[in-house]
This record gives sequence, C-alpha cells and structure tokens, in this order.
Amino acid sequence: MSSQQLDAVLAHIDADLDNSLKRLFDFLRIQSISTDPAYASNCRQAAEFVAEDLAGLGFEASVRPTPGHPIVVAKAQDAGAGSAPRVLFYGHYDVQPVDPLELWETPPFEPRLATLPDGRKCVVARGACDDKGQVMTFVEACRAFKAVTGKLPIPITMMIEGEEECGSAHLFDFVKANAGELTRDFALVCDTSMWDPQTPMVTTSLRGLVYEEVRLTCADRDLHSGLFGGAAQNPLRVLSKVLAAMHDDNGRVTIPGFYDGVRELPPDIKADLGGLDLTAENFLGPVGLKVPAGEKDRLLVEQVSTRPTAEINGIVGGYTGAGAKTVIPGKAMAKVSFRLVDDQDPEKIRSAFHAFVRARLPEDCEVEFANYGSAPAFALSFDNPALTKTRAALAAEWGRKAITVGEGGSIPIVGDFKRLLGMDTIMVGFALDDDRVHSPNEKFDLTSFHKGTRSWARILAALAQ
Amino acid sequence: MSSQQLDAVLAHIDADLDNSLKRLFDFLRIQSISTDPAYASNCRQAAEFVAEDLAGLGFEASVRPTPGHPIVVAKAQDAGAGSAPRVLFYGHYDVQPVDPLELWETPPFEPRLATLPDGRKCVVARGACDDKGQVMTFVEACRAFKAVTGKLPIPITMMIEGEEECGSAHLFDFVKANAGELTRDFALVCDTSMWDPQTPMVTTSLRGLVYEEVRLTCADRDLHSGLFGGAAQNPLRVLSKVLAAMHDDNGRVTIPGFYDGVRELPPDIKADLGGLDLTAENFLGPVGLKVPAGEKDRLLVEQVSTRPTAEINGIVGGYTGAGAKTVIPGKAMAKVSFRLVDDQDPEKIRSAFHAFVRARLPEDCEVEFANYGSAPAFALSFDNPALTKTRAALAAEWGRKAITVGEGGSIPIVGDFKRLLGMDTIMVGFALDDDRVHSPNEKFDLTSFHKGTRSWARILAALAQ
Repeated sequence: MSSQQLDAVLAHIDADLDNSLKRLFDFLRIQSISTDPAYASNCRQAAEFVAEDLAGLGFEASVRPTPGHPIVVAKAQDAGAGSAPRVLFYGHYDVQPVDPLELWETPPFEPRLATLPDGRKCVVARGACDDKGQVMTFVEACRAFKAVTGKLPIPITMMIEGEEECGSAHLFDFVKANAGELTRDFALVCDTSMWDPQTPMVTTSLRGLVYEEVRLTCADRDLHSGLFGGAAQNPLRVLSKVLAAMHDDNGRVTIPGFYDGVRELPPDIKADLGGLDLTAENFLGPVGLKVPAGEKDRLLVEQVSTRPTAEINGIVGGYTGAGAKTVIPGKAMAKVSFRLVDDQDPEKIRSAFHAFVRARLPEDCEVEFANYGSAPAFALSFDNPALTKTRAALAAEWGRKAITVGEGGSIPIVGDFKRLLGMDTIMVGFALDDDRVHSPNEKFDLTSFHKGTRSWARILAALAQ
Repeated sequence: MSSQQLDAVLAHIDADLDNSLKRLFDFLRIQSISTDPAYASNCRQAAEFVAEDLAGLGFEASVRPTPGHPIVVAKAQDAGAGSAPRVLFYGHYDVQPVDPLELWETPPFEPRLATLPDGRKCVVARGACDDKGQVMTFVEACRAFKAVTGKLPIPITMMIEGEEECGSAHLFDFVKANAGELTRDFALVCDTSMWDPQTPMVTTSLRGLVYEEVRLTCADRDLHSGLFGGAAQNPLRVLSKVLAAMHDDNGRVTIPGFYDGVRELPPDIKADLGGLDLTAENFLGPVGLKVPAGEKDRLLVEQVSTRPTAEINGIVGGYTGAGAKTVIPGKAMAKVSFRLVDDQDPEKIRSAFHAFVRARLPEDCEVEFANYGSAPAFALSFDNPALTKTRAALAAEWGRKAITVGEGGSIPIVGDFKRLLGMDTIMVGFALDDDRVHSPNEKFDLTSFHKGTRSWARILAALAQ
C-alpha cells in the first residue's frame, strides 16, 4: 500500500467523522446489558447491528448462537499481498448495567456529545468507551479502506461477543469449537487504555494467577484460652508465621523457585518505563497510600505489571465479633494469590507454595489446600514484528513513542487465544483513566474515537507491508 | 482446740453422713437455675434454704436483695482464741440449666446415690458438685463443730450468691457496698477441684487477662489485586508480620518487658509440679493435640497455669467467603489476649503491646486499639501461714501431700476480694475431672463429699491454732 493510499484513507476518516459518530450513536442506543436476562433481546439486536454493519463492508458475517448471548463472527478474505498476516479482531458488543441510574446526567442509552471542563469533547453513553466505541474505531478504519481502496489491506476475521461484562461463560467453548476459522496469525484487541491522552500504548503482557486457600487445623475444637492457653497450638499463630515468612524485608517473595521463569525487561523497554510519570503520588495517592510496598529495587510500574506478586486476600479464624472471647480456635483459613509473569509455571508455583507452608507447620497442625485459579501469564515478545509495526504506526499518528506496558490483571480471552489457538494478541486501546468505564456518565474522548480510527488505519496499513 | 476435740468432730461427721446427705438432697431438689428468669422464685427458695440452715447453726443469717437474685450473708462471731483469723467463706447456691434434658439418666432435680463402674459411690443431680455439694462440705463441717463443741472454731462469715452461673452481675457492687462486714482476714472458696481422686489441691494463683483488639488500615478502600498487587500495602501482610513476631522459636513472648514481674516458682513447689502426671497425652490428647506449644523450657503445668501467655484469639480481613476474590483489603483486625501472672502490670503490658505493634508498622498502615479486658493476676504467697495450715490439714485427711497449682483462667470474685477488700483467698475444692459439671448427669463423689467435710473440719481446726 502506498503512502498516498494511506493518506487518502486517513483523509476519508477525517471527512466522514460525523457519519461515523452517527453510526456509533446508533450502536450505543441499543441497551445490550448482558448480565440482566431482561435485556436478552437487546443483546441480540446489538449482535445483529454489528453483523449487518460488517456485512455491508463485505464481511461474511453471521450471528452465532451460544447457550448465552450470540457471538458475531465476520470474515473478510480481501487481502493485500499474499504474505500479509491474517488477523482476528476481538471486541464485545455488550455493556455494563447502568445503576445507579440517578447519577447519570442524561439517560445512559441516549448518546450525546459533551465538552469537558478542560475543553475536550467526548461521547457520553453507556458503552461509549467499553467496548462499543473502541470496537467502532476498528470498524471505521475498515470502512475507510473499503471506501477508498475498495478492499481491506489484510485478511480480517472479527469475533464480537456479547458476554464480556458477565464473565464470558460461553466464549471458551465457542473458541474451542470454532478453532479452525478463528485461528489466525495473531489477534488484535481494542479494549485497553492509552497511557495518557497524549501517549499511545500497547499492552504487551498480562499477569497470570494462582489462587489458593489454606486451611489449618490444630485442636479438634475451639479451646478456652484460660485452660489451654500456653499449651495448645494456635492455628492463627501458625498462619501468621507462615504468611509473614512469604516476603523478605525487601518485599521479595521467599518461596523457593518462585522467580523461576521471570525475565528481566530489555533495557530499552525498562528505560521507557522509567521515563513515565507513574508516581506513588498519582497512582497510590487516590486510594490513600503513599509508598510502593512491593520489591524495593523495582519501579512502581514494574511492581504492578511485570513483576510477580504474592498477596494475602483474606484471613479468618477464631472470634471476630464484637468484644472479647477468650478462645484458641481449632481452625484458621487464609486465601493467598500469586500474580504470575513471563514463564512462571502455575503448577510449580502451587507446589512450591504448598511445600513452603508444610515446611513451616509445627506438630499438631494439619493443612488442606483448595485451588480457585491457575492461569499462566501472557507476554508478547518485545521483538514481535507485528508489535514493532504497531508501535511505529501509533507513534506516527500520535507524534509520540508508543509505550509498552504489562497489565497487572488478566484478560482471560488473551490467555485462551494463546492456549487454545497458539495465537499471540496485540492489545491496543484508546480508553483514558477518566472514562468512567462501568460507572455513570461513561464517556469516550472524541480524540480517542477519531485518532483511534486513524491509528487502526495506520496499523492495518503497516501490517500489510 | 485439742486433737481429741477434732477427732470427736470427725467422728461426728462420719456418724452423721446419712443425715448430711439428706440435707444435701433437700438443697439439690431446689431448681435454682439462675440464668432463666422462670426460676427466679426457685433461686429465692434456695437462698432461704441456705439462710435458714445457717441460722439453725447460730449464724446471724439474712437473704439480701440485689437487682438480680438475692445473696445470703451469714455471720457467726463464735470464736476460739481471740487471735484466730476471721474468714469469709464464699460459694453459690445457683446452678446451670439442665439442657439437654434427654441426656439425663434420671431427672436432674431428683438427687440419687449411684455407683460408678469402678465402684465409686456418688450423688447425681444438677448442682451435686457445682456448687451445692461443695458448699455443703463446709456447712457440714461447721455443723459438726457446733454439735460437738457447741461453737465454731474461728469467726466465720459466709456469702453465698445466686448468680455465679450467669455472670455474677451484681456481686461486685454488693461486695463494694458491704465491704465492712465482708472484709475478713482472708477468704475461703470451695468451688475448685482436687488434682485427682487421691490428691488434694489448693489453687494458689489465677492468671490475669489483657484483651486487645488491633485494627489496621492501609488503603481507604478494598483494592483489586491485579491493578494494585505489588504496590499497595496489604494490612493482612502487616498483621501477619506483627503477630508472627510476638513469639520467638522457643515459644517465649518477645514483647519488651513482658516478663517483668513474673516470678520463678520456689524449688519445692516446682518439684511438686514436676512430679505430677500432667502429660501432653492426658491433657492435650482429648482435644486432638500431642505437643505442648508453649515455652519450650517449661513444664506443661507451668505453661497452662503459672506462666504468662500471648494468644491470637481471632483474625479477620479481606475476602473470606467461598471461592476466589482478588482483593487487597483496606482493613484487617485481630484480637490478641495475654494471660498474666504474679505482678505483671496489665497497663504496662497494654502499652508494651501497643508499642510493639507500632514499631512494626510500615508506611501507609495505621493502627487503632480497643481494650476488652484488663485484670491483674492473683497469686497467694507460698509462705502464707493459712495456706501452710490448710495444706497440712488436707495432707492429714488424704494421707498425701496437698499440691498447689495455678488456675489458667480467672475466678472474678477472687480478684474482686483482693482489689476491693485487700483480701487473699484460699481455694480448696473436691471436684473431680469426671464430675460432668455443667453437663447432664452431674455428680459428686461420696468420698469428695464426706472427706471434703472432714477436710474443712481439719482446716478450720488448724486455722484456729
């Protein structure tokens, strides 16, 4: 594709902005709240809206049934050069509930343009950002290619689901059952954020998770601390000792082998991260904290995204009501989870944790474990050629280097693509921290929508090279 | 008093055993369940029974009203030599409820003599031991003195309350209001146990208690462990570190100054305790434990009675329901109590604990404390002359050295006597471990009743010397 062709596509996007907003507004008016069965027909309506729109762009589009809300699959075999990568684009048409309704300044399904106090223009509606607005940046980029060049620059398959906001219960089986038509060279997802309104970002890793419950039993009943205090083993004391030993004074996890498979960031990527303005003040300040509590020799952004963690998510044991009860409990329980990165093996982490606990149990204390989650991390290689092209395209659009970050939490579909289809995912998104996603008065900056569309046009053009 | 006189008193007790049992049975038939308002008139009836019986022995006896059940006070100024100590005897006429009634082999308020499988004879009824049977050992000893010598060997005041089984809510104020007539040289209490059926015992100390609640706050809300995990301070982690640091590897409490005021046992007393058969197997075995978990260089009996302890009575924080929730809690709470001995100062222990916690708080973690108990220990001096006489009298009756032990828990009235009236208490009792106190088929060995009565006769005679 020539740069003149791309320029023409971008010019078309600019000229067609009002029309693309109208289409987005039509999409936003559909009350596709997936978690509430009362809105099932609205969800179907949203799926049909998407399928019809894509069919109009030449996609072979269908609304596929699932035991829940349907999934739209659309395939366009228009291609550029034969060597162009085939991609799967993933997004979702469903939205979060709108409660508390009284906090919305205007009805959530009556989209409108608004101007923020700082002058930014934005679209306000439920789903404006998450994920209808983001999905439409990609669709509008495709539309511009069709309008200007008559075809898409690379072979694109789209899968737009309708249960992302209520757990994607049927997506795993759907992907598995349709692996043949969904397996492409890699996936693109538009459901993440920019670093800030000026800085584009590619999410290159997601932390995995191991979630364990630890149940300790000492005496076969609760004991009176007057009678037995001093002689009976106390499971809360054992639990405290075990959990206190999980981190050293530098915040490093002490479980043997825990860091096996954890890679150091490439120096250039680490330098990029070091240059960001993610400070304790602006990240922790809003929740009442001041000092990063993780590994002392790591950047805050590393602590929350590219470094593994061990957290105590809950403890309960003994008497926890009002006032005093002089009990030595027979049992105590803790929930402990680990965020994993890179090649950490969830099963090895589980085994190492179990051994760590057992090694610290005194006589008269038995342990049982329960597992409530075990997923490896996802990490894109920093020298992935599609990533390199994507970053360059974003930099060209925004006039600023596109940074790469790890997401602290997990996006299950990305892990599923990797595990089920052997497929990497490049996550690009244009959400901003103040978009009020999941909250009343959700918005999407007009700049995010417009330059997001242009970004996808540049990315698709770059991938076609 | 001559030894012939004492022998005559003892012979009278033996000869009168059947009559004394009849009187005990009359007392046991009264359904004086103090915790249930439906039995208020029965409680009054029991008080009147006691007052009438004591009046018949020449006591100036009265049933004194309280906002709850009445308290019997009876004074006998009959005296031996003018130098004889004046004593206050404390006991209670109320009993525990009888549920579950279906587990009683015979109705709980129809006392009967029974024979145990090993041949021991016993009285079975609610209150047979706790405390009607025990109280009557003292009363019958007094009766024998009156019958044989025409007077009591020392001046005796008795206070028999009716709310011991439901918290003694009105006793403290009553003792305070009547300090003048209740303050005597020391108190005698018959509501404790023998070491075993052959070995008499004096309870010489009760542990005190400090009970604290520790509330930690880090973030001002619960956080998502994906987003914040690795950077946000976790109050459960802080709590674990603090509580784990409370004991060293030898089970010793590490709080600075904690052992200030703790005395070593006299060598002869420690030798007595070392010779007892209190083993881990017979003490901990019944609750499913094997190994004493207290200070490693201490006897088990010391760990549970004469040594101070720190126990975690409860912890709660974060998610404790079923399954997984990836939360980093904003708050966490623990309840921690200390059993005190000897001269440990409850207020100093509280301050030292607060300082210990504060010294271990990282940035971003605040603590609040709440106090639910602060009472010093009670300990009788081992060279108390009345104790020495009491032990000798018990040894003479049982043909075996009377051991002294500390009780791990507390008996509030003993502390009140000390604090309000400046009065020590000698606790002698004849309960046995298999008496099923508070349970169906409560019993009191006939030997406990008979030789208990003889024991009090010997003790009173000894105190009169």
